Amino acid sequence: MNLEPPMIALNMKAYRESSGENGLKLAKICEEVFEENGVCMVICPQQTDLSLVCRKVSMPCFSQHVDPIDVGSYTGWVSAEAIKNSGAEGSLINHSEHRIRISEIDILIDKLRSFGLSSMVCTNNEAVSKAVAELKPDAIAIEPPKLIGSGISVSTAEPEIVSDTVDAVRRIDKGIKVLCGAGISNGKDVRSAIELGADGVLLASGVVKAKDPKEVLLDLISGI
Amino acid sequence: MNLEPPMIALNMKAYRESSGENGLKLAKICEEVFEENGVCMVICPQQTDLSLVCRKVSMPCFSQHVDPIDVGSYTGWVSAEAIKNSGAEGSLINHSEHRIRISEIDILIDKLRSFGLSSMVCTNNEAVSKAVAELKPDAIAIEPPKLIGSGISVSTAEPEIVSDTVDAVRRIDKGIKVLCGAGISNGKDVRSAIELGADGVLLASGVVKAKDPKEVLLDLISGI
Amino acid sequence: MNLEPPMIALNMKAYRESSGENGLKLAKICEEVFEENGVCMVICPQQTDLSLVCRKVSMPCFSQHVDPIDVGSYTGWVSAEAIKNSGAEGSLINHSEHRIRISEIDILIDKLRSFGLSSMVCTNNEAVSKAVAELKPDAIAIEPPKLIGSGISVSTAEPEIVSDTVDAVRRIDKGIKVLCGAGISNGKDVRSAIELGADGVLLASGVVKAKDPKEVLLDLISGI
Amino acid sequence: MNLEPPMIALNMKAYRESSGENGLKLAKICEEVFEENGVCMVICPQQTDLSLVCRKVSMPCFSQHVDPIDVGSYTGWVSAEAIKNSGAEGSLINHSEHRIRISEIDILIDKLRSFGLSSMVCTNNEAVSKAVAELKPDAIAIEPPKLIGSGISVSTAEPEIVSDTVDAVRRIDKGIKVLCGAGISNGKDVRSAIELGADGVLLASGVVKAKDPKEVLLDLISGI
Repeated sequence: MNLEPPMIALNMKAYRESSGENGLKLAKICEEVFEENGVCMVICPQQTDLSLVCRKVSMPCFSQHVDPIDVGSYTGWVSAEAIKNSGAEGSLINHSEHRIRISEIDILIDKLRSFGLSSMVCTNNEAVSKAVAELKPDAIAIEPPKLIGSGISVSTAEPEIVSDTVDAVRRIDKGIKVLCGAGISNGKDVRSAIELGADGVLLASGVVKAKDPKEVLLDLISGI
Repeated sequence: MNLEPPMIALNMKAYRESSGENGLKLAKICEEVFEENGVCMVICPQQTDLSLVCRKVSMPCFSQHVDPIDVGSYTGWVSAEAIKNSGAEGSLINHSEHRIRISEIDILIDKLRSFGLSSMVCTNNEAVSKAVAELKPDAIAIEPPKLIGSGISVSTAEPEIVSDTVDAVRRIDKGIKVLCGAGISNGKDVRSAIELGADGVLLASGVVKAKDPKEVLLDLISGI
Repeated sequence: MNLEPPMIALNMKAYRESSGENGLKLAKICEEVFEENGVCMVICPQQTDLSLVCRKVSMPCFSQHVDPIDVGSYTGWVSAEAIKNSGAEGSLINHSEHRIRISEIDILIDKLRSFGLSSMVCTNNEAVSKAVAELKPDAIAIEPPKLIGSGISVSTAEPEIVSDTVDAVRRIDKGIKVLCGAGISNGKDVRSAIELGADGVLLASGVVKAKDPKEVLLDLISGI
Repeated sequence: MNLEPPMIALNMKAYRESSGENGLKLAKICEEVFEENGVCMVICPQQTDLSLVCRKVSMPCFSQHVDPIDVGSYTGWVSAEAIKNSGAEGSLINHSEHRIRISEIDILIDKLRSFGLSSMVCTNNEAVSKAVAELKPDAIAIEPPKLIGSGISVSTAEPEIVSDTVDAVRRIDKGIKVLCGAGISNGKDVRSAIELGADGVLLASGVVKAKDPKEVLLDLISGI
């Protein structure tokens, strides 16, 4: 896929509201918003729904995770090749809820790329973002721990962590996209993130658990 | 599902031959054999294909793995509820390629059951099979390490490990099914396993990587 | 060692109060109580202090953990043989803060025994205790999650979990000692645990973080 | 400690030859060589022997591993503070036999530093070395997988991986020491590594399992 900024990525996580039929309905809503607004969006369905959702919606999907395995005798693990075959266009790596080893991040970025898949690596601070930038992923999503699930806006709490990280990553490799992965609740926050230099945002519960996800998505997009 | 013995379970693992379109084609072949022969069969598609395959075939499907999580903020993990919503009827637990903690096995058996899902716990010897039997799963699949991928038939190599384990598990709980999870290549091996007291077999590469999986399945079924 | 009931086991964990010189001082206090009172006691020093403490005190020491490895190329892991060579007499296994896989528990009990070392496996409920009993450890320490660090006495909160577990384990193997690993603060609790059928208690912060550990130990011993 | 190049670091791993009394004897031999030759050396005893060895020898000792925990309720884990209290001067981190998460490497480098302890982070290639360099450890030990335990000399097999990594790390931070952690068997290899720009070498079995470790150490030192 083309991770064309400004972009909105939605991590559906393992919520009840994003599982099975609920997940398919949510993906359809995202597809509507995507098609009606021409904004760059990517959704990350639940692992068990990946192939199904990729077939049912016409928009970019990512896996939430990829395991450091090749194809072969691996029971219950997800290979980059399986992600390719599901119809997805990339994968999150190293999410704060699914951290992996540094040597595995290195291997997985290359492996995804070899299948034409994009990598979006999650990080927790500027130092780790710089470290990951040296591994040349397609995108980095920074999630400052203090902002995760806090309801606090990134622009009021720690604006400099976004702008400093963007600058630091750019100095290492201008081609890496940087997303803001926490502290985003509405269109105003999206605009703040973009003004701080981010190429987009990575969201989860604010959309998935919303009464009216479409309304929330439209508000978020208004910030672009 | 009803794990009605004698049964044949197929773990599709993360092979290239069972991924995406290949996996769907293989599932369709299993469905044909299942419908034409009236034998109890269950297939375990790749994690990313689970919802898709469950919708496309009319036969029992299991997840290859379930993570010890509830629904919620868990990125890239698979909950029992997601398995239920995929349309699957149960899950493998603690496969030799995906071992988990004993307290997690205990929790997952209960959690699957609370969703009306079956649990098939993999074990490696008689002692561990007895330990798992105390946790009351629906089924235990014993995979003696020496037989995994060895091409050696269970009936020639270690027949007593199957019969002893069956007896030991029955003494703890008569209701638990016991499957033989290694050393099975053909119908003759299936017959041996059943004569040794097993309620069925758990297979993988012998079917998945076969030139003609249907032929192999039909041969296996002939042993029942 | 002889795990002769009634016994008191002290897990020193990774507290500041049990590290380095503090740990050595605490071990000396335990040795005093042990020698003056003739009660069966065992202490579990911090991993890095194990060989040192074993040389400095004349009483049974256990490792807090043992990794499922042989001797060999394993960096930063602890083998059963290293525990033997440290002078310790056994090891905790599967503590709630260090859970391991069921097949590993099976292997480690045998491996410790092959070096003449005792195994004390931690469990969280009756079902898991029965499962572990099938693996024939020397001792099981049950730690009901609700009681861990709660300050609630086992005798008031969940007396039946102790008595039921003792009964269930005895039915599987009379030789396995059962310790109560939570809900013990004073001599009265120790007495309750023993009256409920336990062979002893497993303690941690109540002693390690006490202003006067000797006083606390003497109170605990008074319950025997 | 002062990681003053050129230096020789010895990882004692979990070998029989480096456990308990054997480990203490080996540490004494290293101490002799260290004192007689004035070369910068550091040894990494087995985890259970750390406090004992630190008290018995007068030379720098490192832990083989440190867990990402604070002091507290952590059973069988090793904190940075426990390493400090053992008398050691630093720790290996992320050895190929004990890989950890990237966010944990970041935390542990800072935590060790806060106790005045040095960090030596192991890496497997140039990209990962650069990533780790962004986290500002005191030293990086590169272990190309192809050379680990191969008996092949780094100078004949992959000299450029050492020189390229040294250059890349220096461009990020001149203060970080770079050690060559594989492909070193004798004094000639040590000299090659230093000529390729390395600040030292990290050794294991070649010394630990030698019939005459002192002789091997003296030969290695001759390369400095």
